Amino acid sequence: MSEQVLQYLQEHQQRLLDKLFEFLAIPSVSTDSAHKEDIHKAADFITTYLQDIGFKNIEKQETGGHPLVYAEYNGAGAEAPTVLFYGHYDVQPADPLELWDSEPFKPEIRDGRIFARGSSDDKGQVFMHLAVFEAYMKTEGKLPLNVKVCIEGEEEIGSENLYKVLHDKKEQFQADFAVISDSGMVEKNQPTILYGLKGFTGIEITVNGPDHDLHSGMYGGAVRNPIMALNHILASMKNEEEVVTVDGFYDGVEPLSDEERELIDQVKGEDYVKATSIPETVSEKGYTAKEHTMARPTFEINGMYGGYQGEGTKTIIPSSATAKITCRLVPGQDPERVQQLLEKHVKRVAPAGVTVEVIKEKLSAKAYKVDPDHALIKKAAESYTKAFGKETVYVRMGGSIPVVEWMEAIYQMPIVLLGFGTPDDRLHSPNESFPLDSFEKGMETLAYYWNQVKDK
Amino acid sequence: MSEQVLQYLQEHQQRLLDKLFEFLAIPSVSTDSAHKEDIHKAADFITTYLQDIGFKNIEKQETGGHPLVYAEYNGAGAEAPTVLFYGHYDVQPADPLELWDSEPFKPEIRDGRIFARGSSDDKGQVFMHLAVFEAYMKTEGKLPLNVKVCIEGEEEIGSENLYKVLHDKKEQFQADFAVISDSGMVEKNQPTILYGLKGFTGIEITVNGPDHDLHSGMYGGAVRNPIMALNHILASMKNEEEVVTVDGFYDGVEPLSDEERELIDQVKGEDYVKATSIPETVSEKGYTAKEHTMARPTFEINGMYGGYQGEGTKTIIPSSATAKITCRLVPGQDPERVQQLLEKHVKRVAPAGVTVEVIKEKLSAKAYKVDPDHALIKKAAESYTKAFGKETVYVRMGGSIPVVEWMEAIYQMPIVLLGFGTPDDRLHSPNESFPLDSFEKGMETLAYYWNQVKDK
Repeated sequence: MSEQVLQYLQEHQQRLLDKLFEFLAIPSVSTDSAHKEDIHKAADFITTYLQDIGFKNIEKQETGGHPLVYAEYNGAGAEAPTVLFYGHYDVQPADPLELWDSEPFKPEIRDGRIFARGSSDDKGQVFMHLAVFEAYMKTEGKLPLNVKVCIEGEEEIGSENLYKVLHDKKEQFQADFAVISDSGMVEKNQPTILYGLKGFTGIEITVNGPDHDLHSGMYGGAVRNPIMALNHILASMKNEEEVVTVDGFYDGVEPLSDEERELIDQVKGEDYVKATSIPETVSEKGYTAKEHTMARPTFEINGMYGGYQGEGTKTIIPSSATAKITCRLVPGQDPERVQQLLEKHVKRVAPAGVTVEVIKEKLSAKAYKVDPDHALIKKAAESYTKAFGKETVYVRMGGSIPVVEWMEAIYQMPIVLLGFGTPDDRLHSPNESFPLDSFEKGMETLAYYWNQVKDK
Repeated sequence: MSEQVLQYLQEHQQRLLDKLFEFLAIPSVSTDSAHKEDIHKAADFITTYLQDIGFKNIEKQETGGHPLVYAEYNGAGAEAPTVLFYGHYDVQPADPLELWDSEPFKPEIRDGRIFARGSSDDKGQVFMHLAVFEAYMKTEGKLPLNVKVCIEGEEEIGSENLYKVLHDKKEQFQADFAVISDSGMVEKNQPTILYGLKGFTGIEITVNGPDHDLHSGMYGGAVRNPIMALNHILASMKNEEEVVTVDGFYDGVEPLSDEERELIDQVKGEDYVKATSIPETVSEKGYTAKEHTMARPTFEINGMYGGYQGEGTKTIIPSSATAKITCRLVPGQDPERVQQLLEKHVKRVAPAGVTVEVIKEKLSAKAYKVDPDHALIKKAAESYTKAFGKETVYVRMGGSIPVVEWMEAIYQMPIVLLGFGTPDDRLHSPNESFPLDSFEKGMETLAYYWNQVKDK
């Protein structure tokens, strides 16, 4: 690789940052239908950029939901390998807005970080790839290998339509290997190879009681309170030792080997208490916080609501209560089976006097693990180390990227997770940010990597 | 009493209804500061009406919160007794608006009922008193007895400032007895004397975890979920047999005598299942639904919220969760002590990894019981029976009217509860309504009653 590629990235850094800010300024929130137009704006931003770079066969594919941006570069010739690059241009909702120190969709740099919704997850990392492709084209006139681009707009809502696309258009998306930059490093400037991801599934529980809110003085004592009923149901699903008490939940889970426990122990990781201001960490009985987050399944209530939430007091028995639940799964757990177990448990413990409804999350994913010794992984580690000047560590993480499981299932190709986020990025939260260091050294890493894997 | 009073009420029924609708159209929601102006509009409506009737010394008293309307009529002379008439012009919030079949503040008549927020609780019943006073003045030129009017604007927020007023202005408000119409009958057109009311208290619990919403993949397994923590706390406060499991909660509660159980059993009451569409009633182990609602304490979660409530899925660990709780108390229970017991319980069971905050409801009230054989009560029963053509039943009810306890404590005067609401009125709920029968026969009852109690 010519030095000019890195030089180009340095010389154009300000312009590239300005361009990234344009991208981040688009509130492409996929879960909220009010942002449909912004979703298209974000997709158009990418197609235009790909055109400028010199990609061919650019398509804004209709998926039934939000569009998927596809493009090809074949200029490296038949001898060169083809990589499928995946990312997503959609973002999580920004609420609660009042907790942001700056506007979520007015990017700004403070303390060496880019603050904006999507700066880390995943617009920032998608943009880095495009910038590196631009640098290669503008300096060497070509890319080191052939590239297929797949950037979707539904990752934050479970990639609702992606599976069908990947499955139906196998020919079009087939490649020698895949690269995904939608993950992070264990700490800032610590090169990290992710060799394991958790799976994901969820359910929504609604307890229905009276057909309208009732006066607690007139009906209290005759009517089951739906919120209390839901409290009893949920409290029976995970105990205070953070052990999930749903029958069969842990069936098939690989026991954590001493070797892996050591590997996890060696990872410095982040200071959970410092990063979240909690009084102390809590984790599954018999496991450390790091072990639980990285390698054990989790059960979380993401949201719950029922009855009066306004100012003051309202003495009612509410007509219903709802809880949104998601689980992170590990190898050996089948998402559909876990959903069935959760539903079975809920129906079994539901008390008299109310009716209970369970809605299953449509999109689920199995957990993923790759061989850390694969050549494509090793080369990624070398590129990281070269760019960040530090040894690369290997970890499993608690996050879930459904597309990883699908690509493996459909294409049986190696998948390399090149992530540059950091534990302090506040993904999915107010004040999401991404370090300038990750932005610069990350692009450098990618520049090295393409050069290292350009030969079959 | 001359027949003309009743005749006047009949002849002017349409005009009186139109005037009531003006009153109901004012959204005087006391718990929401956005309605401050409407609160004043409602108070002004009453002062104007009192002037037109011929009341003297009319004051819109500043209370520190919403104004209280005071007025006097002394035309009956020193020989006649003086009654203190209490009511409230404020209403509960109307949300959820989408569940109303007609606008909450655009009154309309359907199926023989007046539909509007406040039609039953309590604007409709307050208006009936004013209309009957008007009828007496316009026909007999005077009222049968002297009257002091006390109509407040904070009943739905616990009558925050009323106690101080009643306490500090004892001279001004002192009377021979009090009449309150802010309650109901056990069924439509069934004359009902309320001889017992429940007390009231409450707390709000907030569980605080991380200082911001967290990505469930990155932190799940290290951080206690505040919603789950609150689930465990609440589930430990009342069991599935509807027994409150907070130590000492039932201390001092008078056991329910066989006589009273019989009395309760004889009350037809309403069909709870039919009125609320629940699968079946549930009540405290060992007590019927009627016994529990009328004569046993209750514990209700009025509202609960935490985390993501929007469309779709958001895979977070929320930073906090909150529950609003109120209890209805019976004779023998001290509200402040119950609050302390609840707080002590919450603090005791709160799990590690979160901090828990308990806010105590500022206004509480003890339960109330009056002697059903008191002359003023007997005469009320006779008036009811005369107007509705049906024997009057005697009941205790689950509702709480703090002012009743305060009047008794401060003035030691008999309090007569003349209520005309019905179980189907949907107080505090969407589609609140009040039967035209109650409106007409209720005014007739009041007309008879004033005539019956005009002599000391």
